[in-house]
Amino acid sequence: METPFPLIGFFCDTPMVGSGYLAMLQTGLLAGCRKWNCLLVIASFELHDADMPARVAEIVRHVPLCGVVLPEPMCDMPGLLGVLQAAGLPVVRIAPHTEDATTFDICIDNEQAAYDVMQHLVGLGHKRIAFIKGPPDHGDANARYAGFRKAMKAAGLPIEEALCVQSATFDYSSGTIAADELLARRPLPTAVFACNDEIAAAVLEAARRRGIKIPEDLSIAGFDDAPLARLVLPTLTTCRQRMELIGYTAVDFIVNPPILGDVRQRIQPHELVVRESTARAPDSVTGHEPPSNSPL
Amino acid sequence: METPFPLIGFFCDTPMVGSGYLAMLQTGLLAGCRKWNCLLVIASFELHDADMPARVAEIVRHVPLCGVVLPEPMCDMPGLLGVLQAAGLPVVRIAPHTEDATTFDICIDNEQAAYDVMQHLVGLGHKRIAFIKGPPDHGDANARYAGFRKAMKAAGLPIEEALCVQSATFDYSSGTIAADELLARRPLPTAVFACNDEIAAAVLEAARRRGIKIPEDLSIAGFDDAPLARLVLPTLTTCRQRMELIGYTAVDFIVNPPILGDVRQRIQPHELVVRESTARAPDSVTGHEPPSNSPL
Repeated sequence: METPFPLIGFFCDTPMVGSGYLAMLQTGLLAGCRKWNCLLVIASFELHDADMPARVAEIVRHVPLCGVVLPEPMCDMPGLLGVLQAAGLPVVRIAPHTEDATTFDICIDNEQAAYDVMQHLVGLGHKRIAFIKGPPDHGDANARYAGFRKAMKAAGLPIEEALCVQSATFDYSSGTIAADELLARRPLPTAVFACNDEIAAAVLEAARRRGIKIPEDLSIAGFDDAPLARLVLPTLTTCRQRMELIGYTAVDFIVNPPILGDVRQRIQPHELVVRESTARAPDSVTGHEPPSNSPL
Repeated sequence: METPFPLIGFFCDTPMVGSGYLAMLQTGLLAGCRKWNCLLVIASFELHDADMPARVAEIVRHVPLCGVVLPEPMCDMPGLLGVLQAAGLPVVRIAPHTEDATTFDICIDNEQAAYDVMQHLVGLGHKRIAFIKGPPDHGDANARYAGFRKAMKAAGLPIEEALCVQSATFDYSSGTIAADELLARRPLPTAVFACNDEIAAAVLEAARRRGIKIPEDLSIAGFDDAPLARLVLPTLTTCRQRMELIGYTAVDFIVNPPILGDVRQRIQPHELVVRESTARAPDSVTGHEPPSNSPL
């Protein structure tokens, strides 16, 4: 098929289909497609399907794609990358956490972004800061956790492992389980940094059920600046990933690759967005903290 | 191109790209594509681009689609439908509001669904019920408004035109403008039925800014059961459209059309979902309503 409409593949996993993250990314991909007169060919896969690379090989053998965009975690699967490389297809990876000399990679600096969110919380006088981790094997989630730990250490604050809780996935229901576990701890933290906005929204709701006032008793910060961050009450302090720009840039990378062969990675800016869910720590309002024996 | 992967076109307008409604629909389309080994080819268009039908004609001439799914409002554009019919392509329309003898149509009964939401509000003793209308030319929005009016009449309640406010689009920012207009009225309504969940979320926030308690002072109902309906606080009473089932069914219609040639429309069920944002009307809590001279 020779067509004036280049086809760009976009392969994602089924849990991610329908997520706000994917919707934002896809909005950018479609804007890039409009610019370049391309069409986006989407397929979704079960992540744990061992036949997935073989199915992708079938697809790229029969459908004349001009390139493929892979979000996390698809972008870190060696079997899948091997198939696409063998087919000679340009691949743009969104937020990868493995090295690959053949792909174009677009990401934000998740560790620095998490560090920036933490600077905001520390600056509000918070000392007992909890972290809700994302899925265990997810590179972005791990980088954000690293940024949390780095910021705690830089501020001289102790990391309490009991306040570092795992959420099995990035979705609201997993976030609720993690939030329930965290909010059963005593004493409570004064701030929670959740690995994404859905989990942060689950913490909001779990806190409300317990009569914990946000942000007076507990500050909550999320990550992504998904649409829901502006819809929950109080609105969420978060870190904006410009997913639409990232999607738009991904199409550029495929249709109009950079001339310099070594420009294989682009780090997009992130931005702290301060809204209503974070405030000064309840024990810091006197302004006389920390006591003289504090490690600060 | 002969391929074992049938390509299904999904054409939508740019404002809808990235919306929760589209994300839910697309989740269902992709599930249907996994079942039938299809790929989804997505393109987005500016609605007011006069060249859009010509651009679609170019696409279907060069890309061997086996069928096309059109959400509203694309599905009610005669020029676009003519192009697809001339190409001999099966077309599934999602929630159309025009007649077309050549398409398969999937929808819910929006008027009845809105009527059901209203029965819930009327059953809670509300009499001064406001309605926030969706975009003026949008068929679903108009059908919901018709259901509102029908239910008010059936309950013997006066429709106050000043309480029927227009939102320019289905999104949060338009909803905020409409909510601000509505909540400036005196006396306030005791309930607001918003044409979708995003607008309802905007009413929640606009009410909160004014110190109006939800649901004690004001009940709010939305429509769609978008993910945000469970994320806002209080959670939203709404009407569930099973968009994922609708998307899944759309792929079935294209790949495995009904044997009976006259099965050209499927009406999917809807479901009232009662959450926290609606409660008994503040003036009806004595339980002595309605007075004996009421038409109720």
